Amino acid sequence: MEKNRLEAFSDGVIAIIITIMVLEMKVSEGINWDTFKMVIPKFISYIISFLFVAIYWVNHHHLLFTIKKVNPSIMWANMNLLFWLSLIPFATAWMGENHFEKITVAVYALLALFCGFSYNILQAAICKTYDEETAKRLMTKQSNRKSIMSIVLYSVSIPIALFIHPFISGFLFVAVSIMWLIPDKNIEKALSVDG
Amino acid sequence: MEKNRLEAFSDGVIAIIITIMVLEMKVSEGINWDTFKMVIPKFISYIISFLFVAIYWVNHHHLLFTIKKVNPSIMWANMNLLFWLSLIPFATAWMGENHFEKITVAVYALLALFCGFSYNILQAAICKTYDEETAKRLMTKQSNRKSIMSIVLYSVSIPIALFIHPFISGFLFVAVSIMWLIPDKNIEKALSVDG
Amino acid sequence: MEKNRLEAFSDGVIAIIITIMVLEMKVSEGINWDTFKMVIPKFISYIISFLFVAIYWVNHHHLLFTIKKVNPSIMWANMNLLFWLSLIPFATAWMGENHFEKITVAVYALLALFCGFSYNILQAAICKTYDEETAKRLMTKQSNRKSIMSIVLYSVSIPIALFIHPFISGFLFVAVSIMWLIPDKNIEKALSVDG
Amino acid sequence: MEKNRLEAFSDGVIAIIITIMVLEMKVSEGINWDTFKMVIPKFISYIISFLFVAIYWVNHHHLLFTIKKVNPSIMWANMNLLFWLSLIPFATAWMGENHFEKITVAVYALLALFCGFSYNILQAAICKTYDEETAKRLMTKQSNRKSIMSIVLYSVSIPIALFIHPFISGFLFVAVSIMWLIPDKNIEKALSVDG
Repeated sequence: MEKNRLEAFSDGVIAIIITIMVLEMKVSEGINWDTFKMVIPKFISYIISFLFVAIYWVNHHHLLFTIKKVNPSIMWANMNLLFWLSLIPFATAWMGENHFEKITVAVYALLALFCGFSYNILQAAICKTYDEETAKRLMTKQSNRKSIMSIVLYSVSIPIALFIHPFISGFLFVAVSIMWLIPDKNIEKALSVDG
Repeated sequence: MEKNRLEAFSDGVIAIIITIMVLEMKVSEGINWDTFKMVIPKFISYIISFLFVAIYWVNHHHLLFTIKKVNPSIMWANMNLLFWLSLIPFATAWMGENHFEKITVAVYALLALFCGFSYNILQAAICKTYDEETAKRLMTKQSNRKSIMSIVLYSVSIPIALFIHPFISGFLFVAVSIMWLIPDKNIEKALSVDG
Repeated sequence: MEKNRLEAFSDGVIAIIITIMVLEMKVSEGINWDTFKMVIPKFISYIISFLFVAIYWVNHHHLLFTIKKVNPSIMWANMNLLFWLSLIPFATAWMGENHFEKITVAVYALLALFCGFSYNILQAAICKTYDEETAKRLMTKQSNRKSIMSIVLYSVSIPIALFIHPFISGFLFVAVSIMWLIPDKNIEKALSVDG
Repeated sequence: MEKNRLEAFSDGVIAIIITIMVLEMKVSEGINWDTFKMVIPKFISYIISFLFVAIYWVNHHHLLFTIKKVNPSIMWANMNLLFWLSLIPFATAWMGENHFEKITVAVYALLALFCGFSYNILQAAICKTYDEETAKRLMTKQSNRKSIMSIVLYSVSIPIALFIHPFISGFLFVAVSIMWLIPDKNIEKALSVDG
């Protein structure tokens, strides 16, 4: 019951985050090639962020599927994750408007890192409500590897954006997303053994 | 359970898409005839898109009603559909602001085509979870005919917009919508025989 | 089940309508009395529309509480109501920005009338699914009187706004809202006798 | 059943309120230090308001958890709370855009006070549906103390913003939020004894 409302609120916030980003893709009047060219970087940054938020929703979905009871630490860890995700539309618009300028890409990568850490904090808060064995199974090698890979890739994409080229960081963002597109089934497996 | 959350998320996203379009219908201050005239094309493109998204919601509703379990391919096929639908407010605003200029109408038709293909992909992903006979009944003649008609009409409306007149394409959009307003009951019939 | 999703979608759309109106209450930078004075008419029109939409939500809530099954005509009558409600933020912003100019107030009253008619159409579509006696009890004297009163008051507020003074129409809007604030219990009573 | 829909609507509205605030954090094009500096006060006011609304959601969640039936006075007390909360994005944007100018901070504090009173009205409306003893347990010392503290702190922050320094009021806002971050378990305890 309580869990339902946490899910519903999170779904609402994530649905709004993923949809309002499109509002930033404004076009100035006029339809020559120059005005169209202005939309392209905004469109690319929209795709990157849509994928990013969609993956969080799917993983969030899997993660909350496992919990039975909501306690205050889960609730606030979830709020913390939603806070950082809610900044994605801002970072997306900023990056798109400035044509992937290096500082904007670095800020985006930093924000992605914060989202990743917040997700791990939520996972840890949920694991605490389980006995040690289930928790161990939940934190499987595969999902751990993905989490570590994401954090490493987002971390290196900050100096890459600043000192080498922001487009390489952009490709890294897409690479991380593709890695996550293969959903993590270990959480369910771990629990299906248990219950 | 899992299905509920997929529905809830899709409902949230579609509800936001259908509602934020109205935000584009801004009026400049002043209330003479000239400022009012500026709103008319925006209003017409809003009506077209409201109908378009509403029909998708209703059909989506019918389609998801038939599934029992969500698997990753259904989840991502659904995300893909939501992505293309989320671009509708952008295309609507662009078309309305530029008074149904031919290129904007062609882009709108192209986007409608992508939405149609994405819906078919979702349908195919759902059909895979059924045995062959139920799947065959699901893909009934009537709904197939409608899908093919939509794709044909949206396809021809692209060259019509570019080379003949964008208003004819606009009428084709409305024609497709009217065709879909008659809801497809075959999905339910097909399943009621089965279960 | 089906009904739940119709409710959820309607709730989503109405929640967005009621909330995005506040986005129109933008302030220009600077905080002298002149900039503040600009917000007052927008704030008043926001209050009027918040009340208006809130009353629709409550009545919609009561009305859908009574149905057991959703059919296509209920679904599309509901979509029609949501369409007209979705134009409220536009009419609110227009009225507020132009300081209750007579034409904007008349358009608002006209829109309120369309919302009222759409609600009646939805009510009629729902009544058709009941046997004659229950339907008769549903359309009680009290709620009928309120509906007729609303339509009369909104109708007269159009010429009043145009030819006498828009502020009188504004007071009529508030009067209609206060009339509806007393919730209609007859729908539930009618059904509690039945089931 | 009825209660579910009230929760769902409130969740929707609060989810939108908390998310649309980020839309105000627009950046002008250009990425020098000056444009970045403009975002900082908006970001701080966003954090303050995110926390504020999140705390309301959590407490609202706890409060509605206790009710069994929704009556008109609960419904309208809830609408009243949502109305004042819906003004938070406006007050946040105004405060952020004007760099915590004293009048904007005082208005924010006043709005926070109205939200607090509205919450108390909702609580009172819910308490009326219980017998005297349960109601007494619901209004526990701890939650009462927090409510009184909030009202006192928001009240004093109005003259402080106007006559001493708006930043002290800002710190008081954060202090109130931190006080509420420790969730109120008394409501559940009070009821678990009863039922």
